Amino acid sequence: MDIKSKRIAILSPVAWRTPPRAYGAWETVASNITEGLLARGWKNVTLFATKDSITKAKLIGFIEKGYEEDKTQIPLVSTCLHISKMMQKADEFDLIHNNFDYLPLTYLPFIRTPMLTTIHGFSEPDILRAYHDHKDSYYVSISDADRDPELPYLATVYNGIDLSNLTFRETPGDKLVHYGRIHNDKGTHLAIEVAKKCGMDLIIAGIIQDQKYFDELIKPHLNQSSIQYIGPVNPIQRDALLKEAYVVIHLNTIPERFGLVMAESMAAGVPVISMDLGSCREVIADKETGYLVNNVDEAVEAVGKIDRIDRKKCRQRVEENFTIDRMVEGYEKVYEEIFRREDRRRKKFDV
Amino acid sequence: MDIKSKRIAILSPVAWRTPPRAYGAWETVASNITEGLLARGWKNVTLFATKDSITKAKLIGFIEKGYEEDKTQIPLVSTCLHISKMMQKADEFDLIHNNFDYLPLTYLPFIRTPMLTTIHGFSEPDILRAYHDHKDSYYVSISDADRDPELPYLATVYNGIDLSNLTFRETPGDKLVHYGRIHNDKGTHLAIEVAKKCGMDLIIAGIIQDQKYFDELIKPHLNQSSIQYIGPVNPIQRDALLKEAYVVIHLNTIPERFGLVMAESMAAGVPVISMDLGSCREVIADKETGYLVNNVDEAVEAVGKIDRIDRKKCRQRVEENFTIDRMVEGYEKVYEEIFRREDRRRKKFDV
Repeated sequence: MDIKSKRIAILSPVAWRTPPRAYGAWETVASNITEGLLARGWKNVTLFATKDSITKAKLIGFIEKGYEEDKTQIPLVSTCLHISKMMQKADEFDLIHNNFDYLPLTYLPFIRTPMLTTIHGFSEPDILRAYHDHKDSYYVSISDADRDPELPYLATVYNGIDLSNLTFRETPGDKLVHYGRIHNDKGTHLAIEVAKKCGMDLIIAGIIQDQKYFDELIKPHLNQSSIQYIGPVNPIQRDALLKEAYVVIHLNTIPERFGLVMAESMAAGVPVISMDLGSCREVIADKETGYLVNNVDEAVEAVGKIDRIDRKKCRQRVEENFTIDRMVEGYEKVYEEIFRREDRRRKKFDV
Repeated sequence: MDIKSKRIAILSPVAWRTPPRAYGAWETVASNITEGLLARGWKNVTLFATKDSITKAKLIGFIEKGYEEDKTQIPLVSTCLHISKMMQKADEFDLIHNNFDYLPLTYLPFIRTPMLTTIHGFSEPDILRAYHDHKDSYYVSISDADRDPELPYLATVYNGIDLSNLTFRETPGDKLVHYGRIHNDKGTHLAIEVAKKCGMDLIIAGIIQDQKYFDELIKPHLNQSSIQYIGPVNPIQRDALLKEAYVVIHLNTIPERFGLVMAESMAAGVPVISMDLGSCREVIADKETGYLVNNVDEAVEAVGKIDRIDRKKCRQRVEENFTIDRMVEGYEKVYEEIFRREDRRRKKFDV
């Protein structure tokens, strides 16, 4: 049987619409996988997402809208209904690709269809209890760095990004840029330190995820000219922002799981200076598409060496590793491996 | 087959040990049902609860301790593991009696064993979505007042209370008493108003569930003598507290679902003045074991008529309606009805 005729269920979260209107990282990935599979010729792809989701695949939804977009919903009610009702259709699929964290695992003992879970991150260590209860299931990590040593990963499949609103520009801008969630984890305050030490302008963009952090550590440094905060940016605004960028400053204070911001920046030809924590050294090629550093002083030093980076190489690194097509190709290999293993298992028990 | 040989699984929450050391209403009920069934001669009762739970029945646990007693646990991880693993053993039982809210319902489509859910309360209206998705399951309400019109309840089974630390006393104390969760819902601030208008002493006891409410509306009125807060009380302290009580003031501001405090007070012979909201008129016999009122002034007036209440009738009302044995007797009837229906269903499809 042609593998691309296999019946694939993509399980997306129901926090936001798939694809999300703005924020919604896992829904974005689920959407990219779904549309990417179709683009590569898969014929039987079904997306399980909110009813208002948009896809060229078959859409099955049980929840009207994302619970983050409709505050009358109790998130867990929507979540467990979505998952349970999807699982009741498990027999109609050859593979379920779960992008919705650990709760779906607890329904696994009741279905026969194999499930692949992309672990988009361990929000807290205790979540491992749920994963460790299902060590015989299939897992993909989104970077080699973000792995639990006890889980039997089939592969790392890097997130792929949509390049359509990421214009490559050979000519650098003249500002430092920092964008993403405004949160201590992302080191917005460290970007400000770098800007002050370099005497360069800094533009900050993104949703404020920790208001206290913003009020105490960011806001006091903002002004009309040299350090600006412009709020969240949509893909078109992000493209305009990256045009201004001499370099993107990404001094994460905790290990990065993947780092979409780094991939997006490089896609626009913008080098990235990043803390050498977690997946950063997998996304950035050190000294080729940016610099990995260990502290603010090293970051300041790295700003001085940005002219040594070939912006074309930045773009090229993304095209070769972090496109949606590359991601889907990665998943195709994983699906194939799962079908192979399931066939072996079936032969063993059914003969 | 002797109905008391049927294999019953009692599903308790894992927020606290079963029975709980102090607070833990649903765990208390689950424990009372389990031990009560054994006391009435049931032979195959299994309690699913935290591993450190205590029961004379068979105990099966997957979670070491209650997530409220071990803050390293993510509540949902423990909850879904507990439920999923219980459900994997569903075939070993003739009936599952769920005391753990709506999440277990989402596993129902995957098991064959019938499940009875006691709805201990709808914490938010949106929870109904989960129940309405399983209108063909079996439900019990804990009062006639606390019912959703769309659900097919088999019966109301009132909570039963353990009378062992509730000493009946014919002689009243001389104080107003208010106890339970210190929260606006329970009307602690209204009890203070009543005390001031009556010029009587008031003792307040219970856990502070809303610190802001306590700090703003309760604390300013406390003093060493006439209005005292003595903190949470265990059953022995509660018994001593009720000895002091002339009447218990229970001016709930939202519909009561059942009202353990009212039953406990009456068990000690203490009349209750309660707001006429929700189940209060099912628990209190108006003008016989207390008074149903609509506001503080009516409550003050009712205090003046407490000497008309026969304290023996208070005790009697509890013995006849709100003991563990009466509760378990109620559940026995419900179990019987479920087995009858399941038999009919089986005959219909299996012949």
